[in-house]
Amino acid sequence: MFFASDNAGPAHPKVMDALMRANEGFASAYGTDPIMAEVTERARALFEAPEAAVYLVATGTAANVLGLATLCQPWQTIFCTPLAHINVDECNAPEFYTGGAKLTLVGEGDKMTAEALEAAILGEEVRGVHGAQRGPVALTNVTERGRVYSGSELAALCAVARRHGLPVHLDGARFANACLATNLSPAEMTWKIGVDAVSFGGTKNGLLGVEAVVFFDPDRAMEFEYRRKRGGHLFSKHRYLSAQMQAYLADDLWRETAAAANARAARLAEGLRGCAAVTLTVTPQANMLFCALPRGLARRLQAAGAQFAVWEGTMEGDAEGMVEIRLVCDWSLPEAEIDRFVALAAAG
Amino acid sequence: MFFASDNAGPAHPKVMDALMRANEGFASAYGTDPIMAEVTERARALFEAPEAAVYLVATGTAANVLGLATLCQPWQTIFCTPLAHINVDECNAPEFYTGGAKLTLVGEGDKMTAEALEAAILGEEVRGVHGAQRGPVALTNVTERGRVYSGSELAALCAVARRHGLPVHLDGARFANACLATNLSPAEMTWKIGVDAVSFGGTKNGLLGVEAVVFFDPDRAMEFEYRRKRGGHLFSKHRYLSAQMQAYLADDLWRETAAAANARAARLAEGLRGCAAVTLTVTPQANMLFCALPRGLARRLQAAGAQFAVWEGTMEGDAEGMVEIRLVCDWSLPEAEIDRFVALAAAG
Amino acid sequence: MFFASDNAGPAHPKVMDALMRANEGFASAYGTDPIMAEVTERARALFEAPEAAVYLVATGTAANVLGLATLCQPWQTIFCTPLAHINVDECNAPEFYTGGAKLTLVGEGDKMTAEALEAAILGEEVRGVHGAQRGPVALTNVTERGRVYSGSELAALCAVARRHGLPVHLDGARFANACLATNLSPAEMTWKIGVDAVSFGGTKNGLLGVEAVVFFDPDRAMEFEYRRKRGGHLFSKHRYLSAQMQAYLADDLWRETAAAANARAARLAEGLRGCAAVTLTVTPQANMLFCALPRGLARRLQAAGAQFAVWEGTMEGDAEGMVEIRLVCDWSLPEAEIDRFVALAAAG
Amino acid sequence: MFFASDNAGPAHPKVMDALMRANEGFASAYGTDPIMAEVTERARALFEAPEAAVYLVATGTAANVLGLATLCQPWQTIFCTPLAHINVDECNAPEFYTGGAKLTLVGEGDKMTAEALEAAILGEEVRGVHGAQRGPVALTNVTERGRVYSGSELAALCAVARRHGLPVHLDGARFANACLATNLSPAEMTWKIGVDAVSFGGTKNGLLGVEAVVFFDPDRAMEFEYRRKRGGHLFSKHRYLSAQMQAYLADDLWRETAAAANARAARLAEGLRGCAAVTLTVTPQANMLFCALPRGLARRLQAAGAQFAVWEGTMEGDAEGMVEIRLVCDWSLPEAEIDRFVALAAAG
Repeated sequence: MFFASDNAGPAHPKVMDALMRANEGFASAYGTDPIMAEVTERARALFEAPEAAVYLVATGTAANVLGLATLCQPWQTIFCTPLAHINVDECNAPEFYTGGAKLTLVGEGDKMTAEALEAAILGEEVRGVHGAQRGPVALTNVTERGRVYSGSELAALCAVARRHGLPVHLDGARFANACLATNLSPAEMTWKIGVDAVSFGGTKNGLLGVEAVVFFDPDRAMEFEYRRKRGGHLFSKHRYLSAQMQAYLADDLWRETAAAANARAARLAEGLRGCAAVTLTVTPQANMLFCALPRGLARRLQAAGAQFAVWEGTMEGDAEGMVEIRLVCDWSLPEAEIDRFVALAAAG
Repeated sequence: MFFASDNAGPAHPKVMDALMRANEGFASAYGTDPIMAEVTERARALFEAPEAAVYLVATGTAANVLGLATLCQPWQTIFCTPLAHINVDECNAPEFYTGGAKLTLVGEGDKMTAEALEAAILGEEVRGVHGAQRGPVALTNVTERGRVYSGSELAALCAVARRHGLPVHLDGARFANACLATNLSPAEMTWKIGVDAVSFGGTKNGLLGVEAVVFFDPDRAMEFEYRRKRGGHLFSKHRYLSAQMQAYLADDLWRETAAAANARAARLAEGLRGCAAVTLTVTPQANMLFCALPRGLARRLQAAGAQFAVWEGTMEGDAEGMVEIRLVCDWSLPEAEIDRFVALAAAG
Repeated sequence: MFFASDNAGPAHPKVMDALMRANEGFASAYGTDPIMAEVTERARALFEAPEAAVYLVATGTAANVLGLATLCQPWQTIFCTPLAHINVDECNAPEFYTGGAKLTLVGEGDKMTAEALEAAILGEEVRGVHGAQRGPVALTNVTERGRVYSGSELAALCAVARRHGLPVHLDGARFANACLATNLSPAEMTWKIGVDAVSFGGTKNGLLGVEAVVFFDPDRAMEFEYRRKRGGHLFSKHRYLSAQMQAYLADDLWRETAAAANARAARLAEGLRGCAAVTLTVTPQANMLFCALPRGLARRLQAAGAQFAVWEGTMEGDAEGMVEIRLVCDWSLPEAEIDRFVALAAAG
Repeated sequence: MFFASDNAGPAHPKVMDALMRANEGFASAYGTDPIMAEVTERARALFEAPEAAVYLVATGTAANVLGLATLCQPWQTIFCTPLAHINVDECNAPEFYTGGAKLTLVGEGDKMTAEALEAAILGEEVRGVHGAQRGPVALTNVTERGRVYSGSELAALCAVARRHGLPVHLDGARFANACLATNLSPAEMTWKIGVDAVSFGGTKNGLLGVEAVVFFDPDRAMEFEYRRKRGGHLFSKHRYLSAQMQAYLADDLWRETAAAANARAARLAEGLRGCAAVTLTVTPQANMLFCALPRGLARRLQAAGAQFAVWEGTMEGDAEGMVEIRLVCDWSLPEAEIDRFVALAAAG
């Protein structure tokens, strides 16, 4: 009963197969391998962006901060939510990679509204050279609370950015889950509404560790390449990144695994809605749930082998006290474990 | 006939097997997987350093610059040779990761002598705060010209560093090849003579992409962890790095592949010594050769399918003109291809 | 009627005299001038800190960020208020000088409470290497809204910092005004309650441009010196900085000018309290006032020659609409101009 | 007998007068003072560059590195000589301000030839993203060995840079001395031959501490302004920088002081050429001399009160051993002291 994260599940067998197939003889290094050429073409087709620059890196943090640094000057500020991965989970990687840019927090939680973004941008008043200058808007879809931005929400946010001449970056660590949850195509979630660069995540969705960074404006491409290299993120045996993404894009595997993950979360949510002692605290939209439950029940679930993150409160204290926990469904999660978890939760 | 680099060969089948075995169910993230615990113990045993801190990253540049940044202040200078990977092949990654340290070039080529190091250190005269302050000594074994530092050479260099209170970093992208070529144990090549941190390379020796960074002084460990995280080099699905290193350390695979690579280079060298038109320009000691040959012959070799790097001179020009080429032998290189290459070279 | 800032007034005649006296013959460079030796002794005496390291730089931003960078690791976050100069007025200088640290905003305005600080520190939960690590607490006295922290407020804040093992930095751009307003001695406002380093401002209080940075723990000193040099903030003709600070410390000039500034603000506040159309929005404690008044009146004051900053709202709009303005009193402000301003304001 | 440096002499009386005149009432901050407007116009006229952007900072290091950082990307390398101030005297400030660029050393000493520059540029072979990319060419006139580049030498160097598409920066800490020594106008030494930005030094030539940074391409201007601010180099009471430069530019004071300094060095050189025990080691061209003399004589000169830097060798050792010393002539150096030094040197 592993709900701790979708960054701990196995790679999909098709991905392992692709790795095996790629492990033949010699292949030219640093992204010049033939598989990468195929990946680039497939990714451009997927995003309906024949000019897009496509790059692979191995971690989500690398994808985000290399992409953002390419869109941001050191004297600017990046607009993001307080819960954004770049704010709370990257140990100041954005500040490091941008050469000292700042993050301006918009709103209170995991999503920003166009109004809040507008206010935050206006709040970073332009007073000559004194304050941070306005920089990129950084969005995340699926958010850190398992919610999604709809197409119209994204469009409204991008419109605000455009009005102020600011580029837009999308952290898509769970991009596939968001596409399925919103019924948007990759193009509709990105350049068609004004996103300039996206981290197209694979690691949390069935790969060993690969994220694509896609720039819709190829003029940004060369700068990204220098940044990737000096960040130590250009792989010599790049074919092993290429092969993962090759499998991910072939036969819509990315959709298949994301659909599996989202379906598991829906099954879990449905089950938990029937548990008297459990309250969903956020309406789940993708593959992540948040619920409040008595500490005693949480402990019993753990004792039975369930693994999850405590989001709010602590496990120490009396049994009646409430805690909020996060439950993430990997594509590989056995449905029987979901049902078992629900049964335990229903028992209270 | 692929001699372009050892960063383009396949992973060893045992490594692929380990990857497959690791791909079972869920494993906790960010280096807390059980395989990593085993790797740490094995690496400590290999280095005879029970307190050492052991970390995995996926690229050689990351290993080098994260290790160096942990040993270096931004106002210091790193002593290395002009040909050092950190100087010529990392797009200013050391300057980036250290927050602006400098590199002071010692000697003219791929190896430094203790005398040259002493002179360079004295040359970075301490004049209060004005110049760069003296920082780490960065050595590479095997060097970029396929030579090795012997145990006594290393000891002499480390003694100079120690006398000036400077830490020593060893870039061991080809550490295994160096151990075999020098007949030194991992401990003898590192902490026993005064090396503080080493990049223990796997990528060029049969892995998909993993390097271990080993700190013999565990006090440096926590700082390294912050730097790795904010560099974007901490893998969530870390088990896939762990598994590669697990296979590498098990049954001395690292020695087996390095021995194969070195033996192939020896076979190639022996063959080329018999070719009238070819002159070895550096006495080969590990898995890399440099030789001068007429441009016309080099072209015929290429036309026959040989791949190699041109080190000095260019392929444009008259056929009698000489070029120097680099030939790197991967552990996987078929011996028949070596023999075929030699036969072609012998034909002139 | 210049109320725009205390960074625009003249230098005190005694300071100019000291500059003139210092301009004799040759003086050794880079802070080794004899006047600096005297300044160090005087500053140590003033702060009752015979071991303190004392440095001069020419701008407040330099003083703040060099001091903070010496107290902060790149993977940490600095706790400060949203209105802190380091957050809104230094164009990301703290992020730049620290090598990419972050700022965590505490509370809503210009002052933080011990409770808010505690909450913010706890909010930067320690989750291994993922989030920013807790770093220095950065206080400002006088605050950007013209208020002061009392001794007990400062002590409570420092106690929170100490409990979490965090160093404390004090931005004292208006340190002298704060000493007078709180009736605290320099030692009582700093090391006696737990401040580790302070920017002891002179520029806003009668100098041409000098701030002292004082470290009460001299172990930090050498690192500061490297940072100052590579920041380009070490003056060759340092005597001209030394001479300003010499005059500032002699005969308590720093108290004299601050007392003059505070007295002017008190006079202005008293006058404005009698103006029906004007409301003080912050209870003034030092040399800075904030008041709300109708836009029409603000315009008439400007037309009559008054210069001030609009803090909230804009000057565009109907005459009855309210704006909040900031009025800063320099030590040199003629009292007649204050009275004239009050008279105009009283006329409505 | 102060020959240690021209960074230790007094400010010219006209400069002090200008400071005094500027110290009247209030002046708007951060470079918007009326004196700066005048300075900008005068500087543009001096450089015959009506569109040039003109900025003032207080130290030579700040001028150099802010200018260079504006011309350089973090993944590039700056071409300069080994003796360049940016290489040996700024504690890695260029690496810091550029965000991690590298310095490539051209030639062996203080001057580079067009051939050496071409070779160095070609040596930084463009190999995709692996090595440092080619960046600005950084020249210094007067050099650190007291020599000058002639107009044709400068033109040849700039032509090499242009051919490779690289910008050119000129460190003019002793720009005025170079103009006089070469008989070139400011325009002829800069934009007319292809210099993009210059540090026009004042500190070593009669000011308290001001350098102008001039960009001939105003498109670079705004970026410089952000960099200056976040470097902590934008002065609030900027009028005191403006006033110094105002006096410097008025009545050609900059030429007057430089002429005085150069004349003193010529007088000193002439005198020393007549001293049997002393050998000029570099043909002096501006206000700096280098000579070899027996250690015993050097000690006697010191004992008589002479101050100078030991350039090569040390003062410890037997009296007959030779040392090379540096003698710098400030504009303010009394001629009698020169004559006295020569007399002592002649006595052997």
